[in-house]
Amino acid sequence: MNTNIEKRTTEELLTFVFDSINKIAGLRSRDRLLPELAKMGRDIVYADRCTIWILNRRTNRLWTKVAQDVEPFEMSADMGLVGCGIEENESLIINDVQSDSRFNSHIDKETGYTTKSMIVIPMENKGGKVIGALQVINKQNGTLFTETDLTHLKLASSYASETLSTILLMEEIEETQRELINIMGVTGENRSKETGLHVKRVAEYSWLLGKLYGLSEEECDVLKDVSPMHDIGKIGIPDAILNKPGRLTEDEMTIMKTHASLGYDILRYSELKLLKAASVVAYEHHEKYDGSGYPNGTKAEDIHIYGRITALADVFDALGSERVYKKAWEDEKIFKLFEEERGKHFDPKLIDLFMKNKNKFLAIRDEFKDAF
Amino acid sequence: MNTNIEKRTTEELLTFVFDSINKIAGLRSRDRLLPELAKMGRDIVYADRCTIWILNRRTNRLWTKVAQDVEPFEMSADMGLVGCGIEENESLIINDVQSDSRFNSHIDKETGYTTKSMIVIPMENKGGKVIGALQVINKQNGTLFTETDLTHLKLASSYASETLSTILLMEEIEETQRELINIMGVTGENRSKETGLHVKRVAEYSWLLGKLYGLSEEECDVLKDVSPMHDIGKIGIPDAILNKPGRLTEDEMTIMKTHASLGYDILRYSELKLLKAASVVAYEHHEKYDGSGYPNGTKAEDIHIYGRITALADVFDALGSERVYKKAWEDEKIFKLFEEERGKHFDPKLIDLFMKNKNKFLAIRDEFKDAF
Repeated sequence: MNTNIEKRTTEELLTFVFDSINKIAGLRSRDRLLPELAKMGRDIVYADRCTIWILNRRTNRLWTKVAQDVEPFEMSADMGLVGCGIEENESLIINDVQSDSRFNSHIDKETGYTTKSMIVIPMENKGGKVIGALQVINKQNGTLFTETDLTHLKLASSYASETLSTILLMEEIEETQRELINIMGVTGENRSKETGLHVKRVAEYSWLLGKLYGLSEEECDVLKDVSPMHDIGKIGIPDAILNKPGRLTEDEMTIMKTHASLGYDILRYSELKLLKAASVVAYEHHEKYDGSGYPNGTKAEDIHIYGRITALADVFDALGSERVYKKAWEDEKIFKLFEEERGKHFDPKLIDLFMKNKNKFLAIRDEFKDAF
Repeated sequence: MNTNIEKRTTEELLTFVFDSINKIAGLRSRDRLLPELAKMGRDIVYADRCTIWILNRRTNRLWTKVAQDVEPFEMSADMGLVGCGIEENESLIINDVQSDSRFNSHIDKETGYTTKSMIVIPMENKGGKVIGALQVINKQNGTLFTETDLTHLKLASSYASETLSTILLMEEIEETQRELINIMGVTGENRSKETGLHVKRVAEYSWLLGKLYGLSEEECDVLKDVSPMHDIGKIGIPDAILNKPGRLTEDEMTIMKTHASLGYDILRYSELKLLKAASVVAYEHHEKYDGSGYPNGTKAEDIHIYGRITALADVFDALGSERVYKKAWEDEKIFKLFEEERGKHFDPKLIDLFMKNKNKFLAIRDEFKDAF
């Protein structure tokens, strides 16, 4: 490693670059991306350290993550050489940092690390707006950074900036999706006077049940994402029935029960994975393990695992929550009911997993408690 | 270009690779991605042609796009050397293609192009499942493909596969988002017995008005994406008012009008660009240019351009559509109203743009006509 990049053979160089970009191209979050980009920047010029800084214009602060399992680090965007490079939108190559008046020696003093040489390259988005900076510190084996190093790092920095923009956009889209689903769930619930936290808790219980059941991480995430839509069909139920204070008549109950099929009808026409999963949850969350549920009286494992899980999560939350028309049940009373309904209303395997991990479910309930 | 990759200087190689990946990292759709990946594959081994094939397992067909403005090309996944490579999940390097019995000479005969040498590399996703193949044809200057070429192409192929997976995922998420918004719009409309096509038409009119008004492509797309949510607040209006057959009383109208603020309240808490835009549309689509609208009586350019546009698009569609309780207005009657309401209900600039481009709006209405 202690040679110049110019000494690498073509093979070594190609392998190094592609190893880096193949790893990077598969990443889906900025937390994972930043350390990998930094590693690439560091190795491309044989530096000791490399940091990719993201600029938050609102707070005028710089943000980074040096390793995936390390807390993010923040500092003011006005400080030091990185701040200078960003402010002036200019690359800096400084081989005697300590005698540079713009250098902020504060961090060195705190960490005991001595900064000798440094390159700072501002990163721009397509619109030419600075979105952050790439910084390398201390050339390995004590030599100086060269103009060639700067040229190479600029290539890496453009790449970092493109990749970062894509990931930030992707994170925004995913977050939008999640919020849209929550809004759909909450608007459905609002009509039936449930609280927004109900859908959140059901989502968390569902994720945990999926995990305990042995579903893959990806399946658990999908289930968590879509479970807030389980009652979306209530949008089609008349207010007079949906919000009736007393007991429903048999006719009213028949109409109320159509919400499962209504939800299914709203979602079923999509070919998209997430919406397909949502349609299953909307359709089957009132089926019962012994076949006595609705709308189809489907039995046991013929009910999709997503349906079996949401059924349990939904009932657990409804029983344990206080409503205008009822008090919350005592936990012991809920557990007793679950034991009785094991293999009747609920999948026996799920009940066993729930009972064995009760405390985890109660902890979720505490975390997302309704505020009255 | 007619030298071997081994002969490139380190600088040339680095510049070549980074030029390619910088372009690729900024792409957001597979239509743009495939030609760029192919160009990279071609140049890395100095081949004459390169194609990136995507496998559709459902139809068992291979799909590609050789240039952004060229129609996609499809073929059976069972055919020829590419089919072989995918079937066996094995890389092939063949320097005498014409005498290989697996070669499908059909395309050569059709195009008049003579395939001499070929490399095929199956592309795998993270799960090890084949998702397509990279194919290069005919080494430039008539030499043969070497094992080194294969090694280099494998690097490019892993990169292509990672990048492709990310883009496909991103496309799926964006599509899911669009469908979720449509579902939200349609469920809102369902409660008020509007048709699903109403929100679609309003979205198309809004996009066109934005374009004519001079908004950027991106702003137009955002407006189109969010306009289906303009009536989302109707979810909070009681059925008895929302679906009342006759005229609303003054009190009922007061309640009905709250749907604008209700929609705003549902969406306003988000920091996300798309939902912020949606909240504006929900809030302001009943404001009028002269300040006589609701909920705030905002005037002229103080009404966000998204609000002014959706107001016009929504009214144009409502008037021109047949409903259970009313016939569709004649076009001339609508245009007359628009002229009268120029500067009163509607932004005069938007009315002028609309009148000058009437036919485009009528064409959209025809394309998304309600079927009775």
